[in-house]
Amino acid sequence: MAEGLLTADAARSLVGSVDAFLFDCDGVIWKGDELIQGVPETLELLRKLGKKLVFVTNNSRKSRRQYSKKFKTLGLEVTEEEIFTSSFAAAMFLKLNKFSPEKKVYVVGEDGILDELKLAGFECFGGPEDGKKNIMLEANFYFDHDKSVGAVIVGLDQYFNYYKMQYASLCIRENPGCLFIATNRDPTGHMTSAQEWPGAGTMVAAVSCSVQKEPIVVGKPSSFLMDFLLKSFNLETSRMCMVGDRLDTDILFGQNTGCKTLLVLSGVTTLPELQDASNTIHPDLYTNSVYDLVKLLQQ
Amino acid sequence: MAEGLLTADAARSLVGSVDAFLFDCDGVIWKGDELIQGVPETLELLRKLGKKLVFVTNNSRKSRRQYSKKFKTLGLEVTEEEIFTSSFAAAMFLKLNKFSPEKKVYVVGEDGILDELKLAGFECFGGPEDGKKNIMLEANFYFDHDKSVGAVIVGLDQYFNYYKMQYASLCIRENPGCLFIATNRDPTGHMTSAQEWPGAGTMVAAVSCSVQKEPIVVGKPSSFLMDFLLKSFNLETSRMCMVGDRLDTDILFGQNTGCKTLLVLSGVTTLPELQDASNTIHPDLYTNSVYDLVKLLQQ
Repeated sequence: MAEGLLTADAARSLVGSVDAFLFDCDGVIWKGDELIQGVPETLELLRKLGKKLVFVTNNSRKSRRQYSKKFKTLGLEVTEEEIFTSSFAAAMFLKLNKFSPEKKVYVVGEDGILDELKLAGFECFGGPEDGKKNIMLEANFYFDHDKSVGAVIVGLDQYFNYYKMQYASLCIRENPGCLFIATNRDPTGHMTSAQEWPGAGTMVAAVSCSVQKEPIVVGKPSSFLMDFLLKSFNLETSRMCMVGDRLDTDILFGQNTGCKTLLVLSGVTTLPELQDASNTIHPDLYTNSVYDLVKLLQQ
Repeated sequence: MAEGLLTADAARSLVGSVDAFLFDCDGVIWKGDELIQGVPETLELLRKLGKKLVFVTNNSRKSRRQYSKKFKTLGLEVTEEEIFTSSFAAAMFLKLNKFSPEKKVYVVGEDGILDELKLAGFECFGGPEDGKKNIMLEANFYFDHDKSVGAVIVGLDQYFNYYKMQYASLCIRENPGCLFIATNRDPTGHMTSAQEWPGAGTMVAAVSCSVQKEPIVVGKPSSFLMDFLLKSFNLETSRMCMVGDRLDTDILFGQNTGCKTLLVLSGVTTLPELQDASNTIHPDLYTNSVYDLVKLLQQ
């Protein structure tokens, strides 16, 4: 079914029929370190209307604590408990699946994943530190790895290199039962306000190709994050609206979990892409940016 | 159809029915920098029998000239003209497709690709040099790229990093008509004798994910390399035998181009993998290593 443009009537009906708004962050709330216009007014209005707000991001570079600080820096009051990151989801996945505390976790990613793992009580290594390590493919070079690694987590990693690819591959291939977890598979993202950058999906694609195996995905559009979120709050997904800028993660996530869905065109998806015949993912509603909610509700 | 084990009869019949043997290198002739047992005797016998020998490798790390030196170091006399690498194939692809000499080529890969491009008269950059460059994803950081890049070539790259992923992505996405060429898509390879390593396929998967586009593949199993090879020699593919250790590149390449095919188990493919129900690629014949040809023909 084709999506509908968010009109004043549709906005009133939407706000009347949901108790909670789930917001993606990159491309919806901010672009890189720049706040998107009208976001403070929108969040303020929705809070005034008694709506619960939750921020769900696939960006695993930061922990919940770091994200809460980022919100503060941008002038927004958001608590850690309102934030669900794919880095947090990865740690919670291990916790819920009773990952043995005697095993270690190897991380292809940044501090957000390491921090969440440590907060959850897991021993982990890799991350930015291994970004400094080089491989020299020379005769008889043997690359050793830790046999006690029981899970590899792959997320967005600006320090990605051949060393980490091989380390992750050896753990997944040679350590019996080693889990291969991806925070998410976004191909690109607005990591800076100026342009798009390769997303976690590119690191996941490389490691997945090397080990010829598909990962367990814990971020959007996987329903793992939603199941966990529902356990934390007393909410029904039919009374929730997922607001995002990506069709294949945000909107699909909302649809997979039974939420209403609103696509904003302030991030990576353009109107021609949404309306292209090849697109099979259709949100319930779409609009330019979250600020339209304020403008339309005040009409 | 199921493959047959190479017997003495099958070996005699094979040698009698072909004029040329095409050998893959990694896992067939050598593993890393170690010669596989019996290779000198095998090549000597086939040359004595008047067979033409061609060496076809997807490993793009070296140029034809560098490979010729490697053969010499290992005690094998092989001329540059007998060697077809995916790095050479990439340069020849641009030449045959009349790539404008006013445009530049960006290389995600190693010296082999840069050397072959320069020999063919093309201006290129990237490669190991860009492996030293780092990205810091910070606010308002804008990453610029050369708008005169008309082709990006991605091959095996032990210096792969986030900088190159973004550089390649910007050229492919933003430079009108920019070609996206992969030397090959091998997921792994015996880059050292001791173990397997991520292959060019992993770098290709990452860039392909970032730009959401499939590359033109010039190495095995693409028939481009064979078309070029046939132009260089006066041969019929039905009178050729492709000898390789990978089903999805070597054997598929042989089948795609009409050669007889012989799988050797001295590289990445194991007998259980060959005989697994999920495998759909079946060589005409298989054996442990090329040395079996000598042993069987002398029975």
